[in-house]
Amino acid sequence: MKSKLVFSDRFPSPNALAEHPILIFDSFLLKNKNTKKWIESFPHRIEVKAGESLKQFKQFEKHFIDVLRIVEQTKIKNISLIGLGGGSVGDFVGFMASVFKRGVPLIHIPSTWLAAIDSAHGGKTALNVAGYKNQIGTFYKAEQIFLIKSLLENQPEERVYEAMGEVLKTVLLNGGALWKKTRNQSSFSKTTLWKILPDLIAYKYKIVNQDPYETKGIRFFLNFGHTFGHVLESIHQLPHGVAVNYGLRLALDFSLQKKILSQKEYDQINNNELIIKYLFSSVDAINLIKKTPKLEKHLLQDKKSSEKNKIRFVFLRKIGKPVVKVMTTQELIAFSKNSRLV
Amino acid sequence: MKSKLVFSDRFPSPNALAEHPILIFDSFLLKNKNTKKWIESFPHRIEVKAGESLKQFKQFEKHFIDVLRIVEQTKIKNISLIGLGGGSVGDFVGFMASVFKRGVPLIHIPSTWLAAIDSAHGGKTALNVAGYKNQIGTFYKAEQIFLIKSLLENQPEERVYEAMGEVLKTVLLNGGALWKKTRNQSSFSKTTLWKILPDLIAYKYKIVNQDPYETKGIRFFLNFGHTFGHVLESIHQLPHGVAVNYGLRLALDFSLQKKILSQKEYDQINNNELIIKYLFSSVDAINLIKKTPKLEKHLLQDKKSSEKNKIRFVFLRKIGKPVVKVMTTQELIAFSKNSRLV
Repeated sequence: MKSKLVFSDRFPSPNALAEHPILIFDSFLLKNKNTKKWIESFPHRIEVKAGESLKQFKQFEKHFIDVLRIVEQTKIKNISLIGLGGGSVGDFVGFMASVFKRGVPLIHIPSTWLAAIDSAHGGKTALNVAGYKNQIGTFYKAEQIFLIKSLLENQPEERVYEAMGEVLKTVLLNGGALWKKTRNQSSFSKTTLWKILPDLIAYKYKIVNQDPYETKGIRFFLNFGHTFGHVLESIHQLPHGVAVNYGLRLALDFSLQKKILSQKEYDQINNNELIIKYLFSSVDAINLIKKTPKLEKHLLQDKKSSEKNKIRFVFLRKIGKPVVKVMTTQELIAFSKNSRLV
Repeated sequence: MKSKLVFSDRFPSPNALAEHPILIFDSFLLKNKNTKKWIESFPHRIEVKAGESLKQFKQFEKHFIDVLRIVEQTKIKNISLIGLGGGSVGDFVGFMASVFKRGVPLIHIPSTWLAAIDSAHGGKTALNVAGYKNQIGTFYKAEQIFLIKSLLENQPEERVYEAMGEVLKTVLLNGGALWKKTRNQSSFSKTTLWKILPDLIAYKYKIVNQDPYETKGIRFFLNFGHTFGHVLESIHQLPHGVAVNYGLRLALDFSLQKKILSQKEYDQINNNELIIKYLFSSVDAINLIKKTPKLEKHLLQDKKSSEKNKIRFVFLRKIGKPVVKVMTTQELIAFSKNSRLV
């Protein structure tokens, strides 16, 4: 499942990407003059509006026909699809590449930190259907993934904030060197994020390579913070990384409450400078979950739930040591209702 | 890519297929009383109208939501999709299984000879888009393929006739034992077809297993008779097997004309009882291709064409020995225009 990673300070030329690249890009990126100039250097390009609505069938059919027309008109068969944008664009272009004439080469160029850290890697593609997220999808490896410093740093500060959920998740799951690098990180900026990006990505591949098709349970560790996170994301319309940030706090508190995580280790986590600065507080997380209606229904809708009223939940045993346990929805609800500040 | 094959005299019970089977079936099959009774023994089933129009996006979305509703209502996550029907149903259900929540187990129960011999095997799935066939698809292995004698023999005689294109193709490509078994086959019936079915299928797997993702050129041998066949199929609205039958005759005559096939071997082919009875004549095939407008445009539209104005074409060197050569469309058109009876 390992794709070729290219970390670069500058924009690659279209020719350097593939013989016949077709660029599918987020129209938002045209706002930056340099990025616009680079985008316009692609002879074949399709502009899309990023966001979950892009992942609807209707948009998929429309842009599929756009690609088909380019192929018809140019008579070029060996195209490659280049997805330039955040998570939704990556999911969308990845799916298209995986099913266009039974598969054409795919290159991801994530433009958001969240995509650069997480969604561009690991081969998951997705569309939505009938209002449900990611019901349609494939596992499809990108041939190359370009991480472009100037592109990522051009993003507004908000995108750093939104990425922090997945950053903190990876730091907690990985522990080790990544933990040490961030523990005393008093000032944290885009530059710091660019510096630890290879480590963050490396952890994702370490997990994904052991379980490329999500059949062995290992990949499920990446769901840390996502059980409550997904519910909060859909009910309160939060950005994914923000919802995961709340979900992580709840998962940590639940780990402590169930005595899976020791008080000592929990305190150590709360003393990490990055955690202090970015992880949401127990007060905020619990208040939010208490304001979430129909929690049971939404918990069960999660694609990852294993069977009737049972949910696999990722706890943290130690920094760098996640553990998965099967919980009933009743236990999760009892936790979220009765939780007090720990 | 090898799926488990089950040859059976009777209908399997739903439980024998999978723990939680969802049957997607061709509504035409309800016309047979026994088949209807069996279909109705499935607790979860979705009726579809078979044919190329089933493979449109709109139908796909509609029936995808049907499956999603069953999963929602029953809260069963580990479903299997069972495709019961001919080629279009197999392509459709195969695609759905390959992308439903990134893949669920798939079982094919082909109800036509053509599907039983060819399309149910080898993992190709497909949808149509914007009037073009099979533009969207995946490679996705069925876990099991059930070949049910009574189901296949229930089909009208016309379906045997339609299957003969692929039967003759396989006999010519395979040669050997299959050639000997059919050479003196003076009377050919459904029963004969059932008897040679395992041999026909075995040839397909022999090829597919060497080249599961169509990347090595080996699988291209299966395209014998299909270059002209696909054009005739779409222009003259012929059933696939009938179009391939014409395409085979043209490919044989072209092989002879280009001296790839010797006159002696060509005569030997024409003395096979099955060929005598079922392969269309040179007169009919040439007359039909001469009545086909915009041949060049349609030849180039074929998904299998390699690059600008070049087309890979499967010739026969000897019985059981195909050979692929790259031809220009001009050569193909010159052949089809100037061909006289050989």
